[in-house]
Formats: sequence, C-alpha cells, structure tokens
Amino acid sequence: MILINGVSKDSVDIADRGFQYGDGLFETLDVRNGQPVFLEQHLKRLKSGCQQLYIPFPGETLLSLEAKNLSCQKSSGRAVLKIIVTRGSGGRGYRQPEIIEPTRVLSLHPYPEYPESYQEQGIVARFCKTRLGLNPTLAGIKHLNRLEQVMARAEWSDPAIQEGLMLDINNHVIEGTMTNLFYIKNNHLYTATLAQAGVAGIMRSIVISLSADCGFPVIEHIFTKDELLAADEVFVCNSIIGIWPLRKIATTCFAVGVITKTLQKQLSSFIGPELIHGQ
Amino acid sequence: MILINGVSKDSVDIADRGFQYGDGLFETLDVRNGQPVFLEQHLKRLKSGCQQLYIPFPGETLLSLEAKNLSCQKSSGRAVLKIIVTRGSGGRGYRQPEIIEPTRVLSLHPYPEYPESYQEQGIVARFCKTRLGLNPTLAGIKHLNRLEQVMARAEWSDPAIQEGLMLDINNHVIEGTMTNLFYIKNNHLYTATLAQAGVAGIMRSIVISLSADCGFPVIEHIFTKDELLAADEVFVCNSIIGIWPLRKIATTCFAVGVITKTLQKQLSSFIGPELIHGQ
Repeated sequence: MILINGVSKDSVDIADRGFQYGDGLFETLDVRNGQPVFLEQHLKRLKSGCQQLYIPFPGETLLSLEAKNLSCQKSSGRAVLKIIVTRGSGGRGYRQPEIIEPTRVLSLHPYPEYPESYQEQGIVARFCKTRLGLNPTLAGIKHLNRLEQVMARAEWSDPAIQEGLMLDINNHVIEGTMTNLFYIKNNHLYTATLAQAGVAGIMRSIVISLSADCGFPVIEHIFTKDELLAADEVFVCNSIIGIWPLRKIATTCFAVGVITKTLQKQLSSFIGPELIHGQ
Repeated sequence: MILINGVSKDSVDIADRGFQYGDGLFETLDVRNGQPVFLEQHLKRLKSGCQQLYIPFPGETLLSLEAKNLSCQKSSGRAVLKIIVTRGSGGRGYRQPEIIEPTRVLSLHPYPEYPESYQEQGIVARFCKTRLGLNPTLAGIKHLNRLEQVMARAEWSDPAIQEGLMLDINNHVIEGTMTNLFYIKNNHLYTATLAQAGVAGIMRSIVISLSADCGFPVIEHIFTKDELLAADEVFVCNSIIGIWPLRKIATTCFAVGVITKTLQKQLSSFIGPELIHGQ
C-alpha cells in the first residue's frame, strides 16, 4: 500500500534526489484502528523540515488527506505509516533544479510485533561504537541522511538487545538508534540537547509536554555515559513504541520507576481510549 | 541510458535503502570517446566504501563490464558515467536485511558544457556558509548522504561563481561542494586532511601522485581561510573537470601559476592522448 504523488505505485524515478543524495525528509506514524496518531504534529515537523531544507512543502491538507485515506485501509489493530518528502527529480549534480517538484511517498507497513513486556518490564540497551557526527545545520531534522543510524544498528544482531544508545564524537550521550532517550534523577527528567546531533522526535516533544503537565521539570542538557548510568530511571521513546523503560544498559540495571509509569499512563490518556481500544 | 542490476529501466524500488536512508555509495566518471577514465581507481574506491559500510561489493568484473558497455554508447566526445551501489531493498527500520542484495545503478549523462576558460584562466569561488559536520566514521567515503553539499550548493545561483568552498564546524577549510581543493605555497602543495570531513576524491589522489612524480611535495594538513588566501596558487579538482585553477576566492585574486599548469599537463599525459583526442 504505497502512494507516490497520489498514485498507487511501488517505484521511484532513479533521478529522484531522495535516491541520489538522501535529499529529503521522513515521518513515521503509529496507526491505530485506521487513524494516524499525532498526525498534526508530524505534519508540522515535516513542514518545518521542508522549510529548513528549502523543499516546497506539499501542503497539510493534501498530506493529511492521503495519510488518512491510506491509514483507514488498516481499519482495526495497528500499523505504521511512513511519509517521505524529497526534493523530487533533478539533473546530475548537487545543484537543485530551478523548479522543485517535491516527491511525496506514503506507505503503510505492518506494526512490529513487540512483546508487551517491553512496555511493562522494560528493554535492554547497549552503547554503540558508531558515533554521531556534529552538524549544527542538520541536527534535529528528520532527514534522509541516515547512514549513522544504519551503521550503529548493524553493530549487533542479538535479539536480547532491543536498542543501541549513541554518543556523539565528544562522548556525550544523545539518543537511541531509533528513539530519543530520557533519564530521571531526583524527580527531574533529563534529555540531550540536540543542537549538534540527534533527531527532535515527536514523542520526545510530547513527553516533555506531558512531564510538565505532571509537574516533573525537564532539563535539556549535555551529559555523559556516567551521568546516565547513575540515573534512577531511564526510558526511550518514539512515535511507534511510545515509552519503553530501560531495565538494563550494558551491565547496569534499572528499576521501572514511578515517573516512567506515570508518563506511560499519561501518554495513553493523551492518545485517547477510543484510538487505543477502537470505537 | 540507465542499467539497474543489469536491466535497462529508470526507476528503483521504493523500499531500496538508497532512497529510504541514503544507504549506499556512488562514483562519477569522465567518459572520453566511449571509455570510462580511471575506471580501475573508481571501482577500487567503490569496493573500499562497500567494505566500510558492510555492503557486499557487486564485483569488479561485473561493474567494469557494465560500465564499459554503457560508456561505449557515447563513442565519441565526452559523457559522465555515474555508478551507484546501495544496500538494496529492505524492510522498514534501520536494521539491514539478513541477506543483503545490493542494487547497482549505472547511468550515462551528458558532459556539462564548461567553457575552455575554466581550465585555462581559472574560475571564481566563494566561501559557503553551510559547514561540513565532523564525522570520523563516514569521512572520506563517497556515500549517498549528501545533504551538506546540497545545502551548500543551494546558497548561490550567480553563474559567475563556479564553485563554493566548504569549511568544517571548526572553521577549517576542507573542500569544494563538488571538488577537492589544493593550494600551493613556496613550491609545496597543501590539501586538507580528511579524517573528520570531506570526500577522498579519485582526482585528489591522482593529483597527489602526479605531484610527487614532478617533485612537488604534498602536505595533508588542517588549514584556515587565512592560510588559503595567502597561497601562491589555488586549484580544485575532480574526475569530471580535471584541474581548474581558482582565479578568485571571494575578493582575493590569484594568478594561474606554473605548478598548476604543470599538473594540468601531467594529467593530460596520464589520461593519454588517445583518450583525449580519440583514436
């Protein structure tokens, strides 16, 4: 189930700059009972990313309509909706075409079969050797230049490890390969500043907002492995998994704490029981 | 004229990781009178890049055959051959498929219509605002994550400026958007160390080798704008343009010097008159 510029097809022009240079952006959405979750927030970030990369935004109305039409093909249970927007086709060379006609690709995928235990008892993470580069121009943007994450995810195949944590070249902890990372120390939440590396996740911003509502201050800062490992609670989050507690990072164990559980409950309420359980 | 995995077609599977993540590599070759120039060197770099990214290399014999077959379709004059190798199609998510079947794309393009004056009198360059990020894991590799170059090239449209020079986030001069950069001071050649940023160009390594043959030492080091602007001669190079002297960078003018001219002549001899003029 793939729509390319509104047409059902499964291949893209070889001259598309997404293929040639990773010249584009993407969003990954949770679909519950036929409805894309946090669609408005995802389209807002996509619009902002397009502005930062000077790619004409295809429009919220159009993308929203296509996202909803595609999502309702999986009318019960869960799925994953991916939206890609590229700078479209162009000639050889980095220079962008004079008239940019962006390519939009919407595709519906099966929801990954994660055990319930990941939510409840937490997951195991490792530290990746692959370092995130420093790049203030592109930091925060969910663009298609994702070789760092590919290289990091290729480091392990042990199914007992669910996520890899990535440090930048200055040995600051930034995020997971596919998640943002939070830790809790003395009832305060901490997460990495994304000024030089990392992706500003939609779930990250929702967690920050829910935490504030619950009265837990969130501090964005620069931190090391040692600070992380001395935490009371640690969790990772993204739009597909929601919030997963970390019960172990390398050899250090953590309890699934009260604040993590509170935030999981708040998130469920925020998504709404009608979306979670169907109407 | 496009060959995808040996078949003539012009579109690629949407699930190709080249499109999804920029998960691949590329080479751009000069084609003269039906023959790809420095094919062996390009395939060697491609193989090395595949090894660094854990992508199975499609094989020198196969790629060489396809490259030659495609190139001879433009049997006189010049053309550009682009070779892309990606990690192939895969599921959603950064994790690579258990069995990687790389995609290879070979395409033949018109040679850009550069005036002769670029070789002889030199070109004008500017400094780009877009900074190259620091990433030791990916530095040097000619991979498909090229948003930095796209953003830098989008900074200007003035046709009087032919190249943009890029600094890294520490304000060290690294390269041009599509070229490597050399400067000459007191009969020594200097070019940037590529340990943290930049592409290790084939023409860069040929220039280093030709310079050594001519008795001009080449020093790879870290340098600033000021050191560059105090040079005796400056040139940029890549596989398509060869060597272009810089006659002006921002407001500083340079003469087309003896060493640059010597290297241009050496390069012509190295490519061979039969390739340059046809047999």
